[in-house]
Amino acid sequence: MYIYGRNVAKEIISNGKKINKVYLKEDFRDNEILSLLKTNGIRYTYLPSKVLDSKVDGVHQGIVLDVDDVDTYELDYILNIEHDNPFIVMLDHIEDPHNFGAIIRTCEALGVDSIIIPNDRACNINSTVIKTSAGAIYNYPIVRVNSLSSAVNTLKKNGYWIIGTDMNSTDYNDINYDMPICLIIGNEGKGISNTLVNMCDYMASIPMKGKINSLNASVSCGIMIAHIVNSRGKNGV
Amino acid sequence: MYIYGRNVAKEIISNGKKINKVYLKEDFRDNEILSLLKTNGIRYTYLPSKVLDSKVDGVHQGIVLDVDDVDTYELDYILNIEHDNPFIVMLDHIEDPHNFGAIIRTCEALGVDSIIIPNDRACNINSTVIKTSAGAIYNYPIVRVNSLSSAVNTLKKNGYWIIGTDMNSTDYNDINYDMPICLIIGNEGKGISNTLVNMCDYMASIPMKGKINSLNASVSCGIMIAHIVNSRGKNGV
Repeated sequence: MYIYGRNVAKEIISNGKKINKVYLKEDFRDNEILSLLKTNGIRYTYLPSKVLDSKVDGVHQGIVLDVDDVDTYELDYILNIEHDNPFIVMLDHIEDPHNFGAIIRTCEALGVDSIIIPNDRACNINSTVIKTSAGAIYNYPIVRVNSLSSAVNTLKKNGYWIIGTDMNSTDYNDINYDMPICLIIGNEGKGISNTLVNMCDYMASIPMKGKINSLNASVSCGIMIAHIVNSRGKNGV
Repeated sequence: MYIYGRNVAKEIISNGKKINKVYLKEDFRDNEILSLLKTNGIRYTYLPSKVLDSKVDGVHQGIVLDVDDVDTYELDYILNIEHDNPFIVMLDHIEDPHNFGAIIRTCEALGVDSIIIPNDRACNINSTVIKTSAGAIYNYPIVRVNSLSSAVNTLKKNGYWIIGTDMNSTDYNDINYDMPICLIIGNEGKGISNTLVNMCDYMASIPMKGKINSLNASVSCGIMIAHIVNSRGKNGV
């Protein structure tokens, strides 16, 4: 997988992540990155700008790294979590890489145990995701499944309560979160699929007061997660 | 100001916002937009792709609108708010248009009274901001000031409590928010400037549990706003 851009390159090099190859634009002069590459003993190849352009889809800022795909996990990872009240986030086909990256960063920072994503029709783990996650993705267990509804069934059998989010359901303040939870965040345009909505134990809504009665997916996900973490804290869980 | 992209164009045309000119790529065939333009009696000009490309910096998807700049307000707007506990958000040089747009959307949806931004060195109100705000910006009072610190001084004199956010200060659960509040959100990289930190009555922190101990600016702003709104609600304010 090709990753590009100076900031994300700096993070990956500094984190000691395995890098297969580094390509620099002929006139690349970022001394901080060049010195990082030297310190870490990483060799690099200079290429004409056009060749770099052909490797990636966005603005590479003169540096492209070839790295292995990010490791993902099977559902078993979650079933083997050992503490009492695990908290999982499931992304029902989030498409925007900025949202996906910001959600990974939020989950890692606030102590969510894992994120479940579907194998198909969702945002891939690309350069923008890694960048927006601020590198959090490298320290975080992401579980990939073929079917979100099968995964929900398995989680239900294992004692999880399934909480979806939408616009006009139960006020999110009025739900008890002291149990194993899988919080489902819906697609940016379509929300949560009907199949999954029907499997939810609760649908939670953040009360709105404006004309645009919806939030950015990563923002509403952050608000829900922080609220659940807070509410558990108050009950000593 | 040029605004581009099909989704944001649809919103602007549907909202009845004044449009000075519409430019379409020679082979533009989006029937929904063409019919919206006709229904609203808006004339358009076809241009070669290259001419459209030269007008804007990003992917225009065949449509560019020339619209007036978004109206902004003076600080007086805030000083004239009539209810008891106004809640203002100040952005200390947010640079990323996705963050700026998502914050506007959050403030509009959750009932924050106004956003203050500085005139210089911050993200302009551009196409990405309007798109990420989901059009909320057209229903929302944004106040522009020359100096954030002068604005904070004025707000303090008018009874506002100034709350900043950072990483290792007071737990945001332990602060009383039942007062007129100006919440300051810092720059994505540098946080809040020292001058403003020194003017804050409280520095609030969202407790973190991970290795990447920071959140995306629009996510942490959303968490703080939802928490303040919730906490006021509980005390009947």
